[in-house]
Amino acid sequence: MAAPDRDATAGLEPVRGRPRDPRTDSAIMAATRRLLTDVGYDQVSMESIARAAGVSRPTIYRRWSSKAHVVFEAAFAIDGDTAELPRSGDFETDLREFVRGAVAFWREPVVEAATLGILAERRRDSELHIRTQQLLDDKIRAELAELVRTAADQGVVRADVDTDTLFNVLVGTTFYGALVDGRADTDHLVDTLCSLIMHGAQTREKE
Amino acid sequence: MAAPDRDATAGLEPVRGRPRDPRTDSAIMAATRRLLTDVGYDQVSMESIARAAGVSRPTIYRRWSSKAHVVFEAAFAIDGDTAELPRSGDFETDLREFVRGAVAFWREPVVEAATLGILAERRRDSELHIRTQQLLDDKIRAELAELVRTAADQGVVRADVDTDTLFNVLVGTTFYGALVDGRADTDHLVDTLCSLIMHGAQTREKE
Repeated sequence: MAAPDRDATAGLEPVRGRPRDPRTDSAIMAATRRLLTDVGYDQVSMESIARAAGVSRPTIYRRWSSKAHVVFEAAFAIDGDTAELPRSGDFETDLREFVRGAVAFWREPVVEAATLGILAERRRDSELHIRTQQLLDDKIRAELAELVRTAADQGVVRADVDTDTLFNVLVGTTFYGALVDGRADTDHLVDTLCSLIMHGAQTREKE
Repeated sequence: MAAPDRDATAGLEPVRGRPRDPRTDSAIMAATRRLLTDVGYDQVSMESIARAAGVSRPTIYRRWSSKAHVVFEAAFAIDGDTAELPRSGDFETDLREFVRGAVAFWREPVVEAATLGILAERRRDSELHIRTQQLLDDKIRAELAELVRTAADQGVVRADVDTDTLFNVLVGTTFYGALVDGRADTDHLVDTLCSLIMHGAQTREKE
């Protein structure tokens, strides 16, 4: 699994101008993911990542400023182009797929191992805060808003549905169901959450 | 703020049979709360709590097995009788109060400082997991279920609303809105979340 550490002799000085070996980055990412699921966020360290990836600590620090930043990239697989939302044309179908995808995301072993640690860590790391917000939130939030707008234009969804709140409901409920409650069955959560969101709790005759 | 440390001379041996001084416990709780909001969960240690409370570390360990357990009790103020749910007799009023109370809870500075750290920690501390589940979840979940059952009996709420999912929606959305998104305005969140839950997203003519 370990790639050769081509930068090991470079010491603590950042080597500018020389292209990084992508195999080194891949080895670091793979080792971090393996450690996360094996020992958990708290027990991962720059030292243990370096050892598992067969590289030096300076090699890792050359690219990532802290363990949290390595873990963030390893767990959330930033490739500049996160998955697009489902777009079947039918709002309820797309909503169900969104919820199913969100539960599956939170329950990925690497994501499950990393998320609470990263969220705790970003309270004192503003750069990490911005990066998590951008990846986990802003892009998907905008895509969901677009989905709701289209459905409202089609007359399927009420025009006054607050898309920010709907986003917080979908992501927050699946987050809590998967990572805090932990007991929720995925199919059951998808069915009951989508039913509640589409139809509401109130009986018809009371409206 | 510091209470006298009556057990300081007792060393590492637990002193059995001698009643604990409640002022010592209060000083430890107050010091922990102060440290949480001053420096954050990660920077709190048994050492810093002992110093701030004017007691020895063994005095703290005599009652709490780890920092996470001290923080849990200090932040979530266990008194064996957490607040009851609102019971006005009108479901929508009670729902709004529940949501408002949940947002206020997650935004209490001490709770905000402790929650993510405690949730991360309990992944490897089964006793802490059980205690958080009991306090933050089981009791309130049962009370919400009772509220929904009463409203269903009155014909106000559909009988097929899944109370476990509704609980995860209310607690998860407010958790995410307050601790992860962070930008949500409380009044706006209460209004839009309760409206979505009561009426659903779907336009009337489509049902």
